[in-house]
Amino acid sequence: MAKIEAKLQRMGLYLPAPLEVPGGLTLPFKPVVVRGNTVYIAGHAPQEPDGSISKPFGKVGAELTAEQGYEMAKKVGLSMLGDLARELGDLDRISGWCHALGMVNVAPGFSSTTPVINGFSELIVELFGPQKGAHSRSAVGVAVLPFDISVEIEAVLQIDG
Amino acid sequence: MAKIEAKLQRMGLYLPAPLEVPGGLTLPFKPVVVRGNTVYIAGHAPQEPDGSISKPFGKVGAELTAEQGYEMAKKVGLSMLGDLARELGDLDRISGWCHALGMVNVAPGFSSTTPVINGFSELIVELFGPQKGAHSRSAVGVAVLPFDISVEIEAVLQIDG
Amino acid sequence: MAKIEAKLQRMGLYLPAPLEVPGGLTLPFKPVVVRGNTVYIAGHAPQEPDGSISKPFGKVGAELTAEQGYEMAKKVGLSMLGDLARELGDLDRISGWCHALGMVNVAPGFSSTTPVINGFSELIVELFGPQKGAHSRSAVGVAVLPFDISVEIEAVLQIDG
Repeated sequence: MAKIEAKLQRMGLYLPAPLEVPGGLTLPFKPVVVRGNTVYIAGHAPQEPDGSISKPFGKVGAELTAEQGYEMAKKVGLSMLGDLARELGDLDRISGWCHALGMVNVAPGFSSTTPVINGFSELIVELFGPQKGAHSRSAVGVAVLPFDISVEIEAVLQIDG
Repeated sequence: MAKIEAKLQRMGLYLPAPLEVPGGLTLPFKPVVVRGNTVYIAGHAPQEPDGSISKPFGKVGAELTAEQGYEMAKKVGLSMLGDLARELGDLDRISGWCHALGMVNVAPGFSSTTPVINGFSELIVELFGPQKGAHSRSAVGVAVLPFDISVEIEAVLQIDG
Repeated sequence: MAKIEAKLQRMGLYLPAPLEVPGGLTLPFKPVVVRGNTVYIAGHAPQEPDGSISKPFGKVGAELTAEQGYEMAKKVGLSMLGDLARELGDLDRISGWCHALGMVNVAPGFSSTTPVINGFSELIVELFGPQKGAHSRSAVGVAVLPFDISVEIEAVLQIDG
């Protein structure tokens, strides 16, 4: 079995099924686009193993605590890895993460976006190690996210030529 | 005539004139920057054929409906294509879209950012086809956009070497 | 002495010390990541020479004026340059800036994000010149930024092969 997927299993983690798109919505874009050696990853939502968007919905600092936000950010990472595995065939093709833009659906006054997005960053570094897993990052609070999800992250990475 | 521009004409669409910068403002950056094979596109506003920023201004969910937001996102795409045509000489040089970050100026509680940014994505896929037009995307709601425009999108694409 | 650093000195500017991370916080990502010829720069905060985050904190349009926001954006640029100098060894290795995403922590109704982020763009173009310093850009208003800083900017650039 591939190295990263074996590690995911040892950590008791899952790769979610493709996104269950909420009712009637068209998504005229791809979750993962490969152009040369660079891989562009669409903004992902936190996902459960069955492909559904994770609950609860709402704002961190109101409907969700910072700790729940952290778990959501981790589930966004798993959602990305599911789509990457389907697109790349093998997560071991990833030669290095580049950048992630983490966006938190914040309640007024909630500015602890850094520890929330750490749920994503710590997963990636643990899985891919300090070299391949290294990435730059922003973690900002936005006014709203699609479907009122609490965390959305987009990212860029590289694969072997 | 170039293929993409001919298609635009058949679709009854226009490439807007360069942006009419609102009074007194300096823009110390470029709308399109080419570095090697990668093209970086600044955040663009919806534009009319004469180069002016499209009206109405304001927030989607308040001053604009979601349907008006969709039209604005499409006009952001046309604005980008105008700048790309001026910078690249020929839109047929585009070998593949990579990623778009769509930002919607949202009224409190408006979370239908996905169908709004579809106005952009559907234009790009229709014009460039499912291979070259494929892109990853985020569609998020921000607190405010410059000049109080309703939609702003930035993007990355690739050209032939 | 390297050209860009000499220019910074002539302009009376400084490269800040590494970020003094606010109490107890883990940052499981890197401020600068080099992948091939592309350099990804994390969202940076405005920094003082000693590495501390610049004050005042808060929202532009409330706790800070647009002019103070401009100065903050310039200090975000210096913060990036400090991390780039440490990672690259020499700022003269930068062959071209690509893109910057400028995010302003805005008070309700404040939409002059363009002149605020100009503090960053004008610094980069002055230091690197119109060719290497050219970049595309977005300047948007977000709901909140980490630690309640007023301006955060992330960027991408290229170095010589």
